[in-house]
Amino acid sequence: MTEWVRLSPEDNVVTATRALPPGHAVEGVATAGPIPSGHKIATRSIAAGERVVKYAQMIGLASTDIAPGEHVHTHNLAFEATAGAYEFGTDLRDVVPASGDTFQGFRRADGRVGTRNYVAVVTSVNCSATAARRIADAFGPEELSAYPNVDGVVAYVHGTGCGMAGDGEGFEALQRVMWGYARHPNHAAVLMVGLGCEMNQIDWLLDAYGLKQGPTFRVMNIQNVAGLRRTVEAGIARIREMLPAANEAARTSCPASDLTVALQCGGSDAWSGITANPALGHATDLLVAQGGTGVLAETPEIYGAEHLLTRRAVSEAVGRRLVERVEWWKDYTARNLGSMDNNPSPGNKAGGLTTILEKSLGAAAKGGTTPLTAVYKYAEPVMTRGFTFMDSPGYDPASVTGQIAGGCNLVCFTTGRGSAFGSKPAPTIKVATNADLFARMPEDMDIGAGEILTGGASVEEKGREIYDTFLRVASGEQTRSEAQGLGDYEFVPWQIGAVM
Amino acid sequence: MTEWVRLSPEDNVVTATRALPPGHAVEGVATAGPIPSGHKIATRSIAAGERVVKYAQMIGLASTDIAPGEHVHTHNLAFEATAGAYEFGTDLRDVVPASGDTFQGFRRADGRVGTRNYVAVVTSVNCSATAARRIADAFGPEELSAYPNVDGVVAYVHGTGCGMAGDGEGFEALQRVMWGYARHPNHAAVLMVGLGCEMNQIDWLLDAYGLKQGPTFRVMNIQNVAGLRRTVEAGIARIREMLPAANEAARTSCPASDLTVALQCGGSDAWSGITANPALGHATDLLVAQGGTGVLAETPEIYGAEHLLTRRAVSEAVGRRLVERVEWWKDYTARNLGSMDNNPSPGNKAGGLTTILEKSLGAAAKGGTTPLTAVYKYAEPVMTRGFTFMDSPGYDPASVTGQIAGGCNLVCFTTGRGSAFGSKPAPTIKVATNADLFARMPEDMDIGAGEILTGGASVEEKGREIYDTFLRVASGEQTRSEAQGLGDYEFVPWQIGAVM
Ligand SMILES: [Ca+2]
Ligand SMILES: [Ca+2]
Ligand SMILES: [Ca+2]
Ligand SMILES: [Ca+2]
Ligand SMILES: [Ca+2]
Repeated sequence: MTEWVRLSPEDNVVTATRALPPGHAVEGVATAGPIPSGHKIATRSIAAGERVVKYAQMIGLASTDIAPGEHVHTHNLAFEATAGAYEFGTDLRDVVPASGDTFQGFRRADGRVGTRNYVAVVTSVNCSATAARRIADAFGPEELSAYPNVDGVVAYVHGTGCGMAGDGEGFEALQRVMWGYARHPNHAAVLMVGLGCEMNQIDWLLDAYGLKQGPTFRVMNIQNVAGLRRTVEAGIARIREMLPAANEAARTSCPASDLTVALQCGGSDAWSGITANPALGHATDLLVAQGGTGVLAETPEIYGAEHLLTRRAVSEAVGRRLVERVEWWKDYTARNLGSMDNNPSPGNKAGGLTTILEKSLGAAAKGGTTPLTAVYKYAEPVMTRGFTFMDSPGYDPASVTGQIAGGCNLVCFTTGRGSAFGSKPAPTIKVATNADLFARMPEDMDIGAGEILTGGASVEEKGREIYDTFLRVASGEQTRSEAQGLGDYEFVPWQIGAVM
Repeated sequence: MTEWVRLSPEDNVVTATRALPPGHAVEGVATAGPIPSGHKIATRSIAAGERVVKYAQMIGLASTDIAPGEHVHTHNLAFEATAGAYEFGTDLRDVVPASGDTFQGFRRADGRVGTRNYVAVVTSVNCSATAARRIADAFGPEELSAYPNVDGVVAYVHGTGCGMAGDGEGFEALQRVMWGYARHPNHAAVLMVGLGCEMNQIDWLLDAYGLKQGPTFRVMNIQNVAGLRRTVEAGIARIREMLPAANEAARTSCPASDLTVALQCGGSDAWSGITANPALGHATDLLVAQGGTGVLAETPEIYGAEHLLTRRAVSEAVGRRLVERVEWWKDYTARNLGSMDNNPSPGNKAGGLTTILEKSLGAAAKGGTTPLTAVYKYAEPVMTRGFTFMDSPGYDPASVTGQIAGGCNLVCFTTGRGSAFGSKPAPTIKVATNADLFARMPEDMDIGAGEILTGGASVEEKGREIYDTFLRVASGEQTRSEAQGLGDYEFVPWQIGAVM
């Protein structure tokens, strides 16, 4: 059992992983008093006014001189948010390029690469949900056995699509999600099914994106086809026509740079920011070094740390897009009679979190340390490689739906409380933050990061394990959530705005 | 083919169902000029300033003297909304009580009556969606054949339950929906399945409603059970324990007063307010005369006519609750950067709708003419008999979910464009507004109201047919949507507020 965790060589604090008595040796210094589990210890002198560094990031300023071995918490560490004092590109770290890592993927005609090969039934509105499910359900293992390269026929069904404004943010976000799923590289062929009179018109989508129907892209409406049964029959016939072409896809060797990984956490615990998130961050750094892409999201959970992300932005324009999203969220929550205020709660503080920066950095740690190359709205196509950010809620299914719509072909999801999340068409790899969860839910967790606490692995070693898992899963290895068949009911487009 | 429709004996206008030439005889008067299809004709003299009456309701005031046979439209009919000039109980019509109509229902221990006998798997959050589906799917026709009185095991799965505020309107509405489904008289037994760390805690619900687990009410969380597979297995075992008790339910003769019918429209057309909605309104009047309950909803669609509904309110308190809901909606849509403004569009006016009153009365016509006995928030338990109103969006699945949560044991849904909607646990009867739709979608439509246009039936006759269908369907006769197996994917709790 390790007694503390160092999250970065640059940090001037480490985190105790169990309660430590006074005079206990920690990295060659002696604790100056009792240190509760999860709390921070200074590993060198920090002068009053100097930066306290964790996650290789400033989490606040020393409010008094701090001696090596001292407990670092609210009594000697403070942070005052200085609104508007954003810096851009002042914390750009060199990425040491690497290459040569590959996986076996499905390279599509447009050059993008799939990690799975599904046929999709995409719905515009809840009113075509049953039709879409019925179409997908018609393709059982027996019929699909004739198409060994096809991973399945998946219906993407949701609760929205009408009773909404026909323009504005909510409408645009939903159309981006539909189009993002329709063009996803993990889909070999797509059938869109609508009702006909819904606000979220399939025809508008085709017009807006300049789309034409073709052998692997078809659309239909229940009202045009005249009824549920006929729609289901016609939909099954369309899919049947598309399966041979879908089955022609084959895996070929692709560079790791063709991976776009959704970084996600849900059901977090006090260890998320110490074990699984930093380890995932290291995996992201390894992926970015290869030219790949990580997509951090969950804007409410990085709130308070956005000015540290803007310092990592490759340009002021990229940084300002992030600031703009945070400002949008303040307005969105205020309009909805809520608030973005998630300062560390008394429970957070008891667990060792001192500042809002530190709390948000625990979530942002999933994004590693490389420059922020782009910021996207929810479900926008991720076109830039490297470490990127996509605006989304923290709510797992809504956030992942946006990330997948943006083109993520893998999802890596850290959890401390234990989530049974899974996704299609991009598979989800789940990382447990603690050993107890990994032991309790072995059929749901792919990787245990609790070994960082128990001393079996460093953050870097666990990050390497996660990264290696990316390559294997991208090549077709089944995740735990895939083995359990998850992903058919977790498609949840972010619903913004009034339901009318 | 009839040439006009009279919606109420009290009306001083009728509606042309096809274009009529000048000098054409209509109810003994001669048209004073050409009358477009769908437009209004005065059937007696209306003095300037006098009320123009359609649906037995004032739709505006004559702006000039109108002679019998004249076209009534924007040139001689006007309405100025007089904000705040609400009257309460000034238009209460006597209900002639009737009795003796019965249906075969499942009378529950609390005295309420079910029209179907399902076992429910209710979810608190999307994170338990797959678990709930997997549990319900385990019960196929073979196993259920041992329980002939059980109509099926149904999973209620949705996209919300976390990433939301833990108090306020949205949270309260979702908890009401869960509890409304859990206590629905069409459910013989209920299993609730959550994840464990979600905002919408099952435990809070049990506390708030003072609930205890028992032989036909069980709860479980994936995190407590430790994983998806074990949750599914444990859930299947719980349902298996509950099936014998569920199967003991039997239909007995119940008075029509035990029916609570959700009144709904979706995919409306120019004839909705002329055929199907008034016919459903007459069915509602017949039901209310028997002591039964109709639940009108869809607040945005009655907007502009709320002051006519307040005149039908049995008390000022009931009327003021409706006004309060309309005010809430103005705020809700404004906060969400939208608007309640749905004045007749140019298209509406071309189709013959002159004022916003007339438009909203076309939707409100589903509620008939009897006094408004109660106004409920979304998903509140409907405790008062007679004609009632429940606040909801117009969006079909969200509105019906609230009505069913409120205890509706039947749904009657009018449609002009053609909807493939169906619902569980309360079955949906669908009424087509026009003959073309009824002919095109025969497997989806239960009743065609287009005969009102073609001359085969009066509004009253069609209303009687709908009412008789209530009694037969309530007794177990399968609706078209049930025959097609709809209702498993149309559970959509109204999501109010920010997704975070
Ligand atoms: Ca999170
Ligand atoms: Ca999340
Ligand atoms: Ca089933
Ligand atoms: Ca409607
Ligand atoms: Ca509706």
